[in-house]
Amino acid sequence: MSVYKIRYGTPEEVVPSRFAPAPACDILTEQPAAAADMRFSTSPRGVKITMPIDPAACIYGFGLQLKGFQHRGTKKHIRPNADPVSNSGDTHAPVPFFVTTAGFGLYVDTARYATFYCGKELRPEKGQEDGTDANRLVSAFEDIYAIREGSDRTILTIEIPIAQGVDLYYITGETILSIVSQYNLLSGGGCMPPMWGLGCFYRCDMKFNEEQVLAMAHRIRELCIPCDILGLEPGWQSHTYSCSYVWDEGRFANAASTVKEICDAGFHLNLWEHAFTHPTAPIYDALIPYSGDYLVWNGLVPDFTLPEARKIFADHQRTLVEMGVSGFKLDECDGSDFTGGWTFPNCALFPSGMDGEQYHSLFGTLYAQTISEALGNRRTLSEVRNLGSLAASYPFVLYSDLYGHKDFITGVVNAGFSGLLWSPEVRHAENAEDLIRRVQSVVFSPQALVNAFYLSEMPWEMHGCTDEIRELFRVRMSLIPYLFTMFYDYHTQGKPPVRALVCDYEKEAEARECKDEYLFGDAMVVAPLTAPEKERDVWLPQGEWFDFFTGKRYEGGKHHIVTDGIPVFVKGGTLLPVAAPVEYVKPDTCFAITLRAYGDCKNAVCRLVEDSDETTDATYRVIELTEQAHETSSARYRVIGVEEMK
Amino acid sequence: MSVYKIRYGTPEEVVPSRFAPAPACDILTEQPAAAADMRFSTSPRGVKITMPIDPAACIYGFGLQLKGFQHRGTKKHIRPNADPVSNSGDTHAPVPFFVTTAGFGLYVDTARYATFYCGKELRPEKGQEDGTDANRLVSAFEDIYAIREGSDRTILTIEIPIAQGVDLYYITGETILSIVSQYNLLSGGGCMPPMWGLGCFYRCDMKFNEEQVLAMAHRIRELCIPCDILGLEPGWQSHTYSCSYVWDEGRFANAASTVKEICDAGFHLNLWEHAFTHPTAPIYDALIPYSGDYLVWNGLVPDFTLPEARKIFADHQRTLVEMGVSGFKLDECDGSDFTGGWTFPNCALFPSGMDGEQYHSLFGTLYAQTISEALGNRRTLSEVRNLGSLAASYPFVLYSDLYGHKDFITGVVNAGFSGLLWSPEVRHAENAEDLIRRVQSVVFSPQALVNAFYLSEMPWEMHGCTDEIRELFRVRMSLIPYLFTMFYDYHTQGKPPVRALVCDYEKEAEARECKDEYLFGDAMVVAPLTAPEKERDVWLPQGEWFDFFTGKRYEGGKHHIVTDGIPVFVKGGTLLPVAAPVEYVKPDTCFAITLRAYGDCKNAVCRLVEDSDETTDATYRVIELTEQAHETSSARYRVIGVEEMK
Repeated sequence: MSVYKIRYGTPEEVVPSRFAPAPACDILTEQPAAAADMRFSTSPRGVKITMPIDPAACIYGFGLQLKGFQHRGTKKHIRPNADPVSNSGDTHAPVPFFVTTAGFGLYVDTARYATFYCGKELRPEKGQEDGTDANRLVSAFEDIYAIREGSDRTILTIEIPIAQGVDLYYITGETILSIVSQYNLLSGGGCMPPMWGLGCFYRCDMKFNEEQVLAMAHRIRELCIPCDILGLEPGWQSHTYSCSYVWDEGRFANAASTVKEICDAGFHLNLWEHAFTHPTAPIYDALIPYSGDYLVWNGLVPDFTLPEARKIFADHQRTLVEMGVSGFKLDECDGSDFTGGWTFPNCALFPSGMDGEQYHSLFGTLYAQTISEALGNRRTLSEVRNLGSLAASYPFVLYSDLYGHKDFITGVVNAGFSGLLWSPEVRHAENAEDLIRRVQSVVFSPQALVNAFYLSEMPWEMHGCTDEIRELFRVRMSLIPYLFTMFYDYHTQGKPPVRALVCDYEKEAEARECKDEYLFGDAMVVAPLTAPEKERDVWLPQGEWFDFFTGKRYEGGKHHIVTDGIPVFVKGGTLLPVAAPVEYVKPDTCFAITLRAYGDCKNAVCRLVEDSDETTDATYRVIELTEQAHETSSARYRVIGVEEMK
Repeated sequence: MSVYKIRYGTPEEVVPSRFAPAPACDILTEQPAAAADMRFSTSPRGVKITMPIDPAACIYGFGLQLKGFQHRGTKKHIRPNADPVSNSGDTHAPVPFFVTTAGFGLYVDTARYATFYCGKELRPEKGQEDGTDANRLVSAFEDIYAIREGSDRTILTIEIPIAQGVDLYYITGETILSIVSQYNLLSGGGCMPPMWGLGCFYRCDMKFNEEQVLAMAHRIRELCIPCDILGLEPGWQSHTYSCSYVWDEGRFANAASTVKEICDAGFHLNLWEHAFTHPTAPIYDALIPYSGDYLVWNGLVPDFTLPEARKIFADHQRTLVEMGVSGFKLDECDGSDFTGGWTFPNCALFPSGMDGEQYHSLFGTLYAQTISEALGNRRTLSEVRNLGSLAASYPFVLYSDLYGHKDFITGVVNAGFSGLLWSPEVRHAENAEDLIRRVQSVVFSPQALVNAFYLSEMPWEMHGCTDEIRELFRVRMSLIPYLFTMFYDYHTQGKPPVRALVCDYEKEAEARECKDEYLFGDAMVVAPLTAPEKERDVWLPQGEWFDFFTGKRYEGGKHHIVTDGIPVFVKGGTLLPVAAPVEYVKPDTCFAITLRAYGDCKNAVCRLVEDSDETTDATYRVIELTEQAHETSSARYRVIGVEEMK
């Protein structure tokens, strides 16, 4: 289990590692054995790397892939794209990092749109042809593209445009989980949100004025819908698109008191914005010299690699933080080819010397850094629509305008391979059934986000299913202590809180193709359904599993499940902390915990994590409980009992 | 109306013009006035070109775009892709050529995946900002991406990767039609198919053996379904995928007599293949030194820029031509990112020194050239799944696995901007209505193709609508003389036989957005419907139009049409030659022509074209007829009367 750095030639100046936090792991500069089989070359095309790959190895990663899962045999072009409708590699959050079931992962430290050919055959020399598949006829349409060749000439090919050198980080490990964890430590470790960030999050209609926002806040409390964060969409600003970053005097004439009233009602406030800066923004003139040569929506594109641009931007946004704002939604930083051609060209030039391609790869990450500077030492769990390499430490969750529920679940499964968090956010729904299915998924995701930015009332009120939705959000709130521990392990060990089953169970063949279930922490498997499905097959790894809600016991293997609920399974031997749900987390909230014992828990340990405060300077205490010894001296947790779930 | 060549730096060696036929137009080397406003630069990224563009100008072209039409404000990345599911520029047949309503078109002579930013704003200097749109709020979801800025800083940006120089061909003209026609003449002029190539084309089930193929041929004749061309799919070969190019001894034990029997029944025979060469192919060993360094489906990728590779390949395929084969379907030459990652990488190397990116841009065109060499001086109308720049002269029609009927109609509308022919081929259908709608479209397209490669019986027999389909194919056959004249104008004047209305009517605002109707020759407007639609709006240019079938009169403007048929309109003053339909075209077929006079035809001239033979050496005679004088001395045409359609 090691991280090796392999340098070829002279890397470009603008690479992700230059802007990333300090690694939280050792990096070996000695060369791994595999390096001997790598071939590097350069041409005006850029850098080309080839390496042999076991043709049976499975390959995962490349960032937030919404359309693919196991990438062996495919080509992935790592390009930011706000509308990633095909399995080409395009995504909101591309990452030039992959992991394999062959004992290694590879991170390519580039801000270029690299292409990965995940297993192709080299031409044999004369007389070396295999000729093993004579007399085959492709006789069905589906067969044509399913052909997979594999031989000792199978190679993995990576192409990095323009660059004439590159650093690779070759990461070895026994499991995908260990490789991914090391990648996350190389990124500085996973982010550590405040507890309130793990609660429920509701974004209001973009057209609301302050009275309507406050009315919504009160309605949420009146209906006892758990909610920790309230989000305002573009309408808070005097001009969008592009952005002025100042309150609209018509809709928000009393912004300061409105913010206070929202916070007093127990909400944290999150403001929408993007970085394209309108001429009416107070920072416009100051930003001109630190912006790129093309406008987007008539707005400047600040060069966030420059400390000057970051300071101008962060200083202004800090005035919003000082009013009481706890987080931001950083929209539109995922350059798009498709949605009308907004965003800057790849050939744009920035004052730092960077070009548009490089900035597209870095934009979301640097934007998140800039906003983190505005937040100072306040922890958050915010939103961003693009992230890239080495981004695990940023407390920003990805989201998308694509709205296919199955694609969104694919995102949950994939994001954890690449140091990313993703929310399958809920917007509108076809009907109550669709809404409930979508909320089931989002509750078991890194961020329980409802983005009602074009809905004047809460979608569950529209569909008459408020009671069912409240109950789902209460499940979320009951898991906050468990989630907080999951994130602590992400922060300290790099372990993704939500991840594909193959991360932990790669030895089991079914896990390698399992793309519609995921691990939610170490102990839970979640297998969502999408409307109008009423049933599905669920595969569980070897061993004993228990229905999270009922305690019904399952053996590892495939099960057909019929349910209106969401299938969630807890690993046998888990002592799971389940809290009495609160509506929102206050700084002094003390969670009343029931320890649910799934299966035989006589040797089980339940870990709870307590932070000293909500800043980035907080210290953490890990509390270990057992069935027998579960008293705590914590102000945060109070164990009220043990419940046997078997 | 001129074609100017603008050279910047030193162009790459591998460019489309190097492999194209001699231009059939003059090329001016003096610089057009617009060149003074172009800015060129180079960097390791490649060549960057900017030029001012009227922000109101409309932009069309870029090859076979199936998802977009008017490209102003969008980005188009010109990349071959067999599965072009979004409006990003990806297509089977990308062409770095666009036309504008600003009086010019621009062809970029590159085999690179160029990117075109069709109108973006440059950043102003301090104090120059417009500030014209203060106090705007984007308040609806749909508005967000619809924002269009436009100012005197609007520029068109073109980026060509890797290259350090480029030739541009700047084409001026009063109309889009005149600009596109000159582009086609720059390509050597449009192709000239034999008359039989314009008839109906049926491709058989890929699993058929020779008995089944012959049974299908006889069934087609028995049902009197017009059919000129019969196509065999992969099953004729002993190995696919990749290809052996030899008859399968099991399914086609008597290939020679089978071919003869098919031809004797009046069919021309077309064989499916792709260029990836299997180890069992007789030409495999000979091709190894002339092939790229990666395999595709375990097959060699011949380097068709090399005369040696072309000769080896063409010599073998010529043996098939000598058996009686009249055409080929050249499949899978459109590199794909999406459908499983087959095809060679962009960084593949070929013995000529060319790389994979360049070859992807040239592959279909060079493959078509190679097959044309195998065909010798026989004219054909064949099929190919990729073409690129300057390809108008190749008698190969594009097709696709995508199967959305509306996308297919978009293809018909767009292909004519870029020197391409496209068939919205018919495969299966949901029901009889869907089948009829699809056949209506394909009959009014460059190639009336039914690709039943996975259907054991004719789709109209499956859906019980043989009579309706026969009647549609008879309409096609009745238009062969008209089609032949359309193609003659393509061949001699570069005028696309099928094209968007904006080509001829750009002064009318509605034409600029009209993306679901098209001109079928100079005289007809076709406005297809797709199932389950029963009605649609049709826009007609100013003037008088007549229903093709009934003669009902329409004024220019918008009309709501309810019909089970296909709306086809003939321009007032057209003397249209309509033939008594034959089942197939023989070398000595003499068409019995009725001259349909739509509207006032006292000054109308009907042009018919007669060829001396079916070779590429043929001479052509243009016969001009009027209402009064319509006797011909032609063995090909006999006018039997004039019919007033008003």
